[in-house]
This record gives sequence, structure tokens and C-alpha cells, in this order.
Amino acid sequence: MIRELRPEDRLEWQRLYQGYQAFYGFHDRPAGFYDKAFARLLSGQAGDFHGLVHADGARLLGLVHYVFHPNLWRDEGVCYLQDLFTDPQARGRGVARALIEAVYAAADARGVPFVYWLTAEDNYPGRMLYDRVAQRSPFIRYQRRLG
Amino acid sequence: MIRELRPEDRLEWQRLYQGYQAFYGFHDRPAGFYDKAFARLLSGQAGDFHGLVHADGARLLGLVHYVFHPNLWRDEGVCYLQDLFTDPQARGRGVARALIEAVYAAADARGVPFVYWLTAEDNYPGRMLYDRVAQRSPFIRYQRRLG
Amino acid sequence: MIRELRPEDRLEWQRLYQGYQAFYGFHDRPAGFYDKAFARLLSGQAGDFHGLVHADGARLLGLVHYVFHPNLWRDEGVCYLQDLFTDPQARGRGVARALIEAVYAAADARGVPFVYWLTAEDNYPGRMLYDRVAQRSPFIRYQRRLG
Amino acid sequence: MIRELRPEDRLEWQRLYQGYQAFYGFHDRPAGFYDKAFARLLSGQAGDFHGLVHADGARLLGLVHYVFHPNLWRDEGVCYLQDLFTDPQARGRGVARALIEAVYAAADARGVPFVYWLTAEDNYPGRMLYDRVAQRSPFIRYQRRLG
Repeated sequence: MIRELRPEDRLEWQRLYQGYQAFYGFHDRPAGFYDKAFARLLSGQAGDFHGLVHADGARLLGLVHYVFHPNLWRDEGVCYLQDLFTDPQARGRGVARALIEAVYAAADARGVPFVYWLTAEDNYPGRMLYDRVAQRSPFIRYQRRLG
Repeated sequence: MIRELRPEDRLEWQRLYQGYQAFYGFHDRPAGFYDKAFARLLSGQAGDFHGLVHADGARLLGLVHYVFHPNLWRDEGVCYLQDLFTDPQARGRGVARALIEAVYAAADARGVPFVYWLTAEDNYPGRMLYDRVAQRSPFIRYQRRLG
Repeated sequence: MIRELRPEDRLEWQRLYQGYQAFYGFHDRPAGFYDKAFARLLSGQAGDFHGLVHADGARLLGLVHYVFHPNLWRDEGVCYLQDLFTDPQARGRGVARALIEAVYAAADARGVPFVYWLTAEDNYPGRMLYDRVAQRSPFIRYQRRLG
Repeated sequence: MIRELRPEDRLEWQRLYQGYQAFYGFHDRPAGFYDKAFARLLSGQAGDFHGLVHADGARLLGLVHYVFHPNLWRDEGVCYLQDLFTDPQARGRGVARALIEAVYAAADARGVPFVYWLTAEDNYPGRMLYDRVAQRSPFIRYQRRLG
């Protein structure tokens, strides 16, 4: 069942989000990193991130975090899906696909159909899904070199 | 000279922005497209786009549009540089580089060091510059298929 | 068991090679295509293709075709692995990996350590293996536009 | 004027080929590297490399090296254009384009229309030309990890 993230999900949510951070090589996020992210996801503040989870009772099978932000070419803005993760124990059951589709539905409800995300080029299991529910952008991304 | 976009730049700004849109294949933006974009750039509204121009008197040699938006991994958010264009007559004089660096400075002033943008894979003249002032992201981008 | 392709493999070999051609969208190769390829693989002619198969008795689980060709930067030349295919029924058992390693061994025996191949960017199952036994080349490939 | 490489081109050829090697980061090829490559290009041996040059009297403005090799999908084989270089002093005059087209003509004369080459992803000046006379292959290349 897909639903919004709730305060009582704190421990389960962190278990998953740590798995996601580790997937991208971040094994030692300070405790404060998770505190702050969770607080923002629940803040309900206009313009900040939203969280959805795939829950099986109290257990979480997957999570997704997204935000709406302005775009000069589109009055209604765009939706950036920053984080998506499925519990490794729950793979192959459509959890990630359902979460992406739930973001699509939330974005449509807000009148913001354009949804995008980033992924590692060699995230092959992820890309098998993404190729079905989305398309690779023809654009490449540059970023400022920092420290 | 690089400065913020001003109301009196309207005609010059549209001349450049039309050139930019045409570069990406959009030759027939309705008039309202330019009206709205210009109004947003000048609105001064928190969370909306900013515009900088490289001006030679009343003539504009280049423009850049950017916006700050939230990021769950970075408290301070990130800066998305959406549009960058140099008048074809003014190429090779460092206009685009100066505009990117002005965005870096504006982002630093706001405490948001991370700046990113997208470009066409075969925008070779642009990439020659971008490789010097930035780096290609290792991530690829997916986007929802729309109508 | 990995061994060289033999005349009595004709039917089994074509079954696999048709599967491989279909994977790349070639569903209707004329009969002569298979006749010629098989004859070349068995010709023993210096400079032409070699074939190895992963056999389980008379049944073939996989095939690989490779050729040596000159390279101006390497006196000994290089080895081009053109075709690699595992029977869909025999996936997940290390067939493809064993075939690649058999080509490496054959190339080493000939004093030609450099082995390369091409694949579709979205051949994710293949790339999961290739990333382990090889590396993606930093170079991109251009080809003449033909009719 | 484009013509075949000749024995008397030895010094001029090495000047260019060293420039090419340096472009790819090879600044210290041993003397024997150039001796061997030049001998192979002039050997006239079936199956080895050919060299064409763009000559302005005794001075060479550019060079190209290519070889034909077997391909199992094409009876007539394919043509690999390994090296292409224009004297930096002679850029912008169509030298590289003329050399590629001369290889196309030589390949056609031999009945081998398919010509391919590799290049660095960020060889932007080269790619501006290649996009006009050829197309980027949709395939990616893997190679064995060596030493």
C-alpha cells in the first residue's frame, strides 16, 4: 500500500534511506543528516520535499522523495524525484514502479506533469524499470566543480 | 558589463532569448511565452527565476537565467542554470564564461555553491567552455514520457 | 564444456545464432546468411573467424565468434569478439562468462591480449557481466552513413 | 592533394604522427614505434594498413591510416580508420574531411563500404566534422582490462 510518510515511520524510513545512501557510496552520513531529512519530509512546508512509502503494515518496502520546483519554460514548474529505494528483500514485486507511478499521480494532481530524476549510468536494474516507465533525456548535465 | 536584467532590456532580451530557443529547435514560441518569462525574471518573487545579462550599453551580448530550488541532500539547496546564450555576433569574447561565473558568484553570495545545468550532447562549442568551468555529471537523467 | 565449433553443431548453432540475430532485431536473415557464416567459422582460413561453443552433449548452451585483425599501435594485432549468445534457457549459469574467458585464453595463446566487443547501451544483463570481466572503452565510435 | 604515403614522406609523416600520438597523451613513443608503423604502411602486404596523406608539395598537411578486416555479418568485411590527423597549422581548410572521403573512396573501390573509427568523447572539433560525414554508432565498446 502506498501512502504518505508519517512520523511513526521514522525507524523503518531510516533503515531504507541508509540502504539508498549506501548504494551511492555514502556509508557514514551523520545522524543529523537523517534527522533533518525526515523533518523536512514531514514539515508540510510549501516548496519542500514530499515523501511516499510502500508500506506492508508497519514495515516499509520502499520510499520515494520528490519536490516541485520552478522552470522558466513551464509555468506550472517541474517535479524532481530525488530518491527512490526498494528494500532489497522486496525486489521484483513492483514496489519501485508503484512508487514512481504514485509520484506521477501526485504530480498530475498538482498540474505538474513533467517528472524527472537522475541515476547512475550503470544502475542496470533500475534502468530496466525506468526504460519502461520513462525515457532517458537526450541532455547531459554539467555541474560546478566543488572543493 | 554583467548586471541584473532590467525592464528596459525587454526588446534586446527577447532578441537573444529567441536565438536561444531557436538553437533548441523552438522557432515558434507564442508571444505570451516571452511576456511571461520576462515578467517572472523581473518579479523579484522569492523562489522564482533570476536573470543576468552581459550588456554593452543598451545592447545585450548574452543572458543567463537561474533559479534556486530545494535538495534533500543539501540544506541550502541547489542552483539550476536553465538558460545561457551569447549573441552569435559576440562569440569568442568570454561572454558565456563571464555569465556562468556571475551565477557562481550569486550562488555563493546566497550560500548555495552547487550549480548545475543541462546541455545537448552535441553542443560542442558550449561543452568546450563547460569542461573548463565545470564537470560533466556522472549521472544520467530520466524523464516521464509526456503526450 | 567449452570447445571449438564442429560440423555436427550446424543445427544447434543456427538455433542459437538466430536467437542472437533476433536480439539485435534481425529476424529474417536469409538462409544463405547462416550457411556462409557457418562455413567461414569452420574454414580454418588464416585471418577469418573462429567459433567456440559451450556444449552440453549435443546441445549447445552458448556460442562466441571472434577474429584477429591488425592494429597499427600493436604489432600483434587485436581480437574482435563479434558475437556472443547464451541460450535463454541456460542463463544465469556462467555460460557467457566462460565463453568470454575462453576467448581471452585463445587470444593469450596467440599472443594477442587485447580483446574488444560492441554491445547495445541498454543491454543491461550483458553489461552486468561485461563490467566484471572487462571495462567500457572511453572512446566512442563513428561509422559511415550507408544507404 | 591526396595521395598514398611514400618512402620520401618519412620525416614529415613522423612529425604529424607524433602530433597525433601526443593528442592522445602518448608523448614518448620509442623511436621503433614510428619505424615499425611506417614500414607497415609501406609494406603493401595484403591485410595490413594503408596510409594516405594530404600533401602540399613535400609538406604534409594531414594523414590517415586504415585497414580492412573481416566481419562475420558482412562478406566483404569492414574498414577500420585508425588514425586521422591534420597539422594544427592547416586546420579549417577541409584537410580531415578530404582524407575521410578519400578513405571512403578507397573502401568503395574495394567493395567495402562500411568504414568506422573511434574517437574521444570530448574531441569536439573532430566530432563537428564526424557528425557531418558519418554518424555516431549506437553501440558502446567494451575491452578487456590489461595490466
